[in-house]
Amino acid sequence: MKFICSRDRLVEIVSIVQKAVSTRSTLPILDGILIHASENSVRLTGYDLETGIEALMDSDVSSEGEIVINSRLFGDIIRKLPDENVLLESNEQNQVTIESGSSVFSIKGFSAEGYPKIPIVTDDQKISLSQGVLKEMIRQTNFAVSTDESRPTLNGCLFSSDGFAVEMVAIDGFRLAIRKRLIGTDLPVVKYIIPGKTLSEVGRILSAKDEEVVIYSSSNHILFDIGNVRIVSRLIQGEYMNYKSILPSSANTTLVVSPQAMLEALERASLIILSEDRRSPVQFTMPIDDTLVISAQTEVGTLREEISVSITGERIDIDFNPRYFIDALRVIEKEEISIIFNGSVGPCVIKPTEGDDFSYLVLPLRR
Amino acid sequence: MKFICSRDRLVEIVSIVQKAVSTRSTLPILDGILIHASENSVRLTGYDLETGIEALMDSDVSSEGEIVINSRLFGDIIRKLPDENVLLESNEQNQVTIESGSSVFSIKGFSAEGYPKIPIVTDDQKISLSQGVLKEMIRQTNFAVSTDESRPTLNGCLFSSDGFAVEMVAIDGFRLAIRKRLIGTDLPVVKYIIPGKTLSEVGRILSAKDEEVVIYSSSNHILFDIGNVRIVSRLIQGEYMNYKSILPSSANTTLVVSPQAMLEALERASLIILSEDRRSPVQFTMPIDDTLVISAQTEVGTLREEISVSITGERIDIDFNPRYFIDALRVIEKEEISIIFNGSVGPCVIKPTEGDDFSYLVLPLRR
Repeated sequence: MKFICSRDRLVEIVSIVQKAVSTRSTLPILDGILIHASENSVRLTGYDLETGIEALMDSDVSSEGEIVINSRLFGDIIRKLPDENVLLESNEQNQVTIESGSSVFSIKGFSAEGYPKIPIVTDDQKISLSQGVLKEMIRQTNFAVSTDESRPTLNGCLFSSDGFAVEMVAIDGFRLAIRKRLIGTDLPVVKYIIPGKTLSEVGRILSAKDEEVVIYSSSNHILFDIGNVRIVSRLIQGEYMNYKSILPSSANTTLVVSPQAMLEALERASLIILSEDRRSPVQFTMPIDDTLVISAQTEVGTLREEISVSITGERIDIDFNPRYFIDALRVIEKEEISIIFNGSVGPCVIKPTEGDDFSYLVLPLRR
Repeated sequence: MKFICSRDRLVEIVSIVQKAVSTRSTLPILDGILIHASENSVRLTGYDLETGIEALMDSDVSSEGEIVINSRLFGDIIRKLPDENVLLESNEQNQVTIESGSSVFSIKGFSAEGYPKIPIVTDDQKISLSQGVLKEMIRQTNFAVSTDESRPTLNGCLFSSDGFAVEMVAIDGFRLAIRKRLIGTDLPVVKYIIPGKTLSEVGRILSAKDEEVVIYSSSNHILFDIGNVRIVSRLIQGEYMNYKSILPSSANTTLVVSPQAMLEALERASLIILSEDRRSPVQFTMPIDDTLVISAQTEVGTLREEISVSITGERIDIDFNPRYFIDALRVIEKEEISIIFNGSVGPCVIKPTEGDDFSYLVLPLRR
C-alpha cells in the first residue's frame, strides 16, 4: 500500500474515526485504525465491535492495499508532521513508513486480515434528515438515556417515524425526554432503539448545518451516511417501555417561566447540595401568585431564590433533584416554557408554551 | 462585617488568592480565604503556610470585620451570582450571607482568629522590575527547578543581582537554566533562593506588560508587590550549588540552528520514545557539514529527521533525553541559537548566537 494525501485532511478524518476506536481492548488490533487504499481514495475505519465509523478522503494512491495502525500513535504522529503532504507506505512485513518533509517515521502495523468486518446495512428503509435537525434532537434527548445496564432497552433512544414526523425518546428511572419534529415529507414508518453511546458519537460528528444525513436500517443495525463519513451501529433489541402511559394528561398547576432564569437558579442551588448526597432536594414553593421560590438547605448552607413566573391553578410545594431539571433546561432553546405539576407527588412535565415539540417529565422527590 | 462590591472584581481577586490556598489541608480553616473589610477596601488572603497571596479591592464597606470562608465553595458561589453587585455580610456566629439580585446564600464561615498570619516583610532591599521581564525570566528558568526533595536548595531558583543585572538560575540533576537580564539601574546586590512553587504562582499572576513589580526581601521571606496584589513566600535557606564551575568554557563543536525546527523534530521523536521508558535517547549525528540528523529507535518504531544547521568544529554523535532539550527550546524566543558540544560525553550548552542572556546546560546520556 502506498499513497500521498493532505496532512490536514488526514488529521481531520483520523479524529473522526478515533471516536469509534476502543482504547483499552484486550485485542491490540482493536486499538487500531484500518487504513484501506484503493484507486484514488483512502478509507479509514475505527470499530469497537458496537459502533463503527468509516471516513473517506481523496488521495494519490500508487499502490492499493490495507493495514491497521495503532490509533493513538498514528493520530499523535500525523498531528505533528512538518509538511502539508504525507506519504504513507506499508510493506509485506506490515512495516509502515510515514514520511512528511524531512521526517521519516517507521512503525509496526497489523495485518488487516485480523480486523473485524463492519456489518453491511442494506435496506430500503431510508430516512433523510438535515444534519442540524438530527444533531439538535440528539442533544435534546440523549442525556436522559439510562446507564443502568439491567434494563438494556433503556440504554438507547427510541427513534421512530409515523410517516410525517420523527420522534426521539429517552428514559431513565427518574425522567423522560421526548423530542418531536415534523418533517412533512413521505417518510417510511420505522421504530428502533439506537444505543446512547452511538448517538453521542453521531451528534459530535454531525454538522449544525442543513447538509443531509441519510439513515439506513436493517433489523439489527443502523447506518448514518454523512457524505464522506459513515457510522454503523448495532440496534438494541427488545420492546421499549410504554412511555405514553406515564405522561400525565391533567394539569393541576401550570407555571410559565424563563428557562434561563430557572436554570441559573438551580445551578446555584446545586452548589449548596453536595454532589455526593444526591438525595438533598431543591424545594419549589409558590408563596404568592407571580413568584416561584427555589430553595435548598444542607449542612453546607442555604440558598433562597425568587423567580418571576405566571401561575395558573393551585399553588403547591414540591421537591426535586435539581440535576434532572438542569439537564432539561440546558437544552431548551425557548424564551418561555410551561412547567406542569400534578400535586406534590405526581410527575412534572416541562413543555413549550404552545405545541408539543418537546416534553421533559421529571419525578419529584418524596418528602 | 458588611460590604457591597463588584461581582466581577470579586471573582477576579478570588481567583488570584485561591492559587495560594491549600486544597487538602488537615485544618479546614487553611482551605479558606480570609476576607478582611476595612474603610473602603476589602482584602482577601490565601495562605498555605509557605506562600501567601493578598489582593485588595475597592468596596462600599458599611461594617468592618473579618471572616474566613471555604475557598472552593466561595469561588463557586460568586462565579454563579446573577447580579453585577454582591452584598457580603457576616454575623457574630460566623454565618455569612451572600446576596446578589434575588439570590440569597447563607453559609457557615470560620472565625478569622484561627487564621495564620502572613509574615511581614520590611526591609530596604527593594528591587523594581517590569512585570513582563520577571514573568519571562520565570518562564525561562523555573521549569528546570528540581522536584527532588533530598536537596532542598535546588527546589528553588537562585535569584541574584550584582547591582546592574538580575540573574535567575535553576538546576536539577540533569540540566541547568540560567537567564540574565541587564537592568542598568542602581540595583541592590542580593542573592536568595525562591521556592519554585512560589515562582510558578508569581509567574501566573504577573502581567506580560510593563507595569512594575517591587520585590522586597528579609532574611527569611520575600514579598512581590504588584499594586493590588502582594505575594509573600518563605525563602529557601542554605548554600546554592556552585553552578559556575559546571559551565564548560570550551567548545569542540558549535551548531547554529533554528530552535523552532529543532523543537518540532524532538517533539516528534518523543512520540517514538515511550514516556515510561525515560532512558531511551534521541541520537544526534552530523553525517555532513550542514545537516543535523535526529533519530530515535524503540520498540514502537523509528524516526529520522534532518535539520539544516551550520556546524563549526568536530562532527560528533551524541545521545540525549529529548525532554530536557524540549523544555529549553520551548521558552527561547530567538530565530537562531548556538548549541555547543564538548565531545559525546561532556555537557552541552544552548546559548544565544551572541551574548549570554541565557544558557541551558544539558547532560548527554551515556551510550
